[in-house]
Amino acid sequence: MIAEIIAVGSEMLTPYRQDTNSLAMTAELNKLGVTVAFKTILGDTFQHLVDATHIALSRADIVLFSGGLGPTEDDLTREAVAQALGVGMTRNEAVVEVLRQRFAKRGLAIQEINFKQGDVIDGAELLPNANGTAPGQWMATEYEGRQRYIALLPGPPKELTALFAEQVRPRLQQVVPPLHIAYRWLRMAVVAESEVDARTSPIYLSYPDVSTTILSTQGEIQLHFQCAKPTLEEAQERVNELLSRCEHEMLDHVFSADGESLEQVNLLMLGMRNLTLATAESCTGGLIAERLTNVPGSSRSYLGGAVVYADHLKTLLADVPKELIQEHGAVSEPVARALAEGIRARIGADIAIGVTGIAGPGGATLNKPVGRVYIALADGNTTEVRELNLNGDRERIRWFAAQHALVMLRQKLM
Amino acid sequence: MIAEIIAVGSEMLTPYRQDTNSLAMTAELNKLGVTVAFKTILGDTFQHLVDATHIALSRADIVLFSGGLGPTEDDLTREAVAQALGVGMTRNEAVVEVLRQRFAKRGLAIQEINFKQGDVIDGAELLPNANGTAPGQWMATEYEGRQRYIALLPGPPKELTALFAEQVRPRLQQVVPPLHIAYRWLRMAVVAESEVDARTSPIYLSYPDVSTTILSTQGEIQLHFQCAKPTLEEAQERVNELLSRCEHEMLDHVFSADGESLEQVNLLMLGMRNLTLATAESCTGGLIAERLTNVPGSSRSYLGGAVVYADHLKTLLADVPKELIQEHGAVSEPVARALAEGIRARIGADIAIGVTGIAGPGGATLNKPVGRVYIALADGNTTEVRELNLNGDRERIRWFAAQHALVMLRQKLM
Repeated sequence: MIAEIIAVGSEMLTPYRQDTNSLAMTAELNKLGVTVAFKTILGDTFQHLVDATHIALSRADIVLFSGGLGPTEDDLTREAVAQALGVGMTRNEAVVEVLRQRFAKRGLAIQEINFKQGDVIDGAELLPNANGTAPGQWMATEYEGRQRYIALLPGPPKELTALFAEQVRPRLQQVVPPLHIAYRWLRMAVVAESEVDARTSPIYLSYPDVSTTILSTQGEIQLHFQCAKPTLEEAQERVNELLSRCEHEMLDHVFSADGESLEQVNLLMLGMRNLTLATAESCTGGLIAERLTNVPGSSRSYLGGAVVYADHLKTLLADVPKELIQEHGAVSEPVARALAEGIRARIGADIAIGVTGIAGPGGATLNKPVGRVYIALADGNTTEVRELNLNGDRERIRWFAAQHALVMLRQKLM
Repeated sequence: MIAEIIAVGSEMLTPYRQDTNSLAMTAELNKLGVTVAFKTILGDTFQHLVDATHIALSRADIVLFSGGLGPTEDDLTREAVAQALGVGMTRNEAVVEVLRQRFAKRGLAIQEINFKQGDVIDGAELLPNANGTAPGQWMATEYEGRQRYIALLPGPPKELTALFAEQVRPRLQQVVPPLHIAYRWLRMAVVAESEVDARTSPIYLSYPDVSTTILSTQGEIQLHFQCAKPTLEEAQERVNELLSRCEHEMLDHVFSADGESLEQVNLLMLGMRNLTLATAESCTGGLIAERLTNVPGSSRSYLGGAVVYADHLKTLLADVPKELIQEHGAVSEPVARALAEGIRARIGADIAIGVTGIAGPGGATLNKPVGRVYIALADGNTTEVRELNLNGDRERIRWFAAQHALVMLRQKLM
């Protein structure tokens, strides 16, 4: 079956706001075996809404509306869907009574316009909304001789998500042919999308029954696998088999087959080995610390460290010899090494990361361009230093430097 | 005039990806006085594309396509638009030649399918793409007796943005009735949206010719003002007047009327007063440092600091007396104070921030719930400490703690 999602609200036609409700609904619909084929976003204009409803009902089995159920004059979804279907609306007195009580409780006078939230399209079922005033509506109907399912949902994500899960999904489950969906994903760091595609496409193309999606985000490539079968076991078997083969092929880059982030994987491995970590960051300015400490429970393994932005702090907080900075420059292999070794010794951590580099846009020298970063990893016995030459703007260079540092750490802990 | 944006690509119908090209295009269209009335998102299905083209041409003066111009079998925008218009396509040999040379340069064999990127819809103009292989197309045509303007643009944001600015906007400017648009915005930190609305709506409602949008992002409220007039002076005058009145009303919370971020404003003020800053962060784990150092040139005023996640680091790096932690606990007013004063003295900064708190989900005690955060600001003479009780998850608590710290700093520097 095919679905269309219609997001209603003029604010989503500005440069500042986007429809995001459709993403979570799409995930849920896909799990039922329903494909989202169209998304339409339009403003609070009655005739646009009526026309869009006709278009959606002519091309999709399931039409989900989000937004336009509130009490203001701009909230027109109910009226427009009724008009498109050529039916009337009936005011539900129980909804009106609840609204009256809500207003009375707060000592507010209720205005006539609020009652329109109780208008139910003839033939539709009311979906009670525990998180807000506007109930949703559900309807199974014929349109031009074809069976259609329609849901009207409120726009606020919290209300919509709950209503969808509790009221719409069970109703869809009864009308959508049963399918069992297995889904897993692989996460890889600092590798090119083209390389992942070149190495894995010969594998995943031989699984035409598994839908494989390759996604690239900042310094990370993800392979998403999804398969629908009459039984869950069959679906899982296919997804697991394909995932294993792709994981084996990309073993040098895969950091997670279960969804954990790169930070989580590192903290997990540190915890298992009972090791502690410290950081001394110059160009990343606390980004590595921030990413690690964003994981709940990170305090078990991550002790802390220094943000040594000014050169004298490299000496003051991480014991980098002043002469080393004078001789080689703050952005150099020896200074990165000294940062990692210095902060490790100072703090008494088992492992330490040191980072120094030029994030730009200023700061480049004749020998050292913007994007030159040195990352050091010290464990008390050996210190490994990597030189990077990164592209992009300041934010990208900082992010990729942190990403590379976390990959180095993971490789050490494997 | 009314525009519709059609984003083409099956990946945008998954739960993982969204159309974002439309946001920047909407901003540019609005500046020309064009309203975006519809956005349609659909996959790489030929008939869906043809139908959507018909629908768009029947309801919008300007139809902008993004995506579907590449060389693969999934790239069908050209073909679909030609089909909807009932015209053919002609292969442009100059484009084919450029493609040949590009492939030859990289020593790759070119395949026949690549040449379709040179197919130009009859009646359309080719828009050269300096950043990629797929050129755009522009067309002024009649559809059902009405004048329509069509642009086909490549999906990659960098290519689309450049093509839109350099090729599409000037063409639209010639056909759209001239309007001059003034636009400004106010940024406010750690204040409730409802408070901003209650205080400013009596003002902005008296400017019906200015479109005012109130937006809430993490710990920040924004007021956007836009006004279209026959002359730029008139539009600017209205926007400036309304902005000034709202700024005056919200003076206690406004940190920027020119778009700068809270970090930028603080660094600017530090720079103007020739002051240096240091940080000692426990629960924010480097987030304040990371946010400050993400601003180019921040090294002029921000020296660095310590991430004192483990308790012994509070003593080791920021000279917090061990006894103070034992007596009051690591999350306490005296420890926040000692962190700020300690790191300030240690590093020799003019001003220092100290943060300690419970970001959760674990770590709460009988007296100290998750969300309890102490922020201290020391300048050598006085140390101000604020106790916060924040709601939400770990990420939100950390972000709001950093946000409050930056607001405190700004208030001190005013």
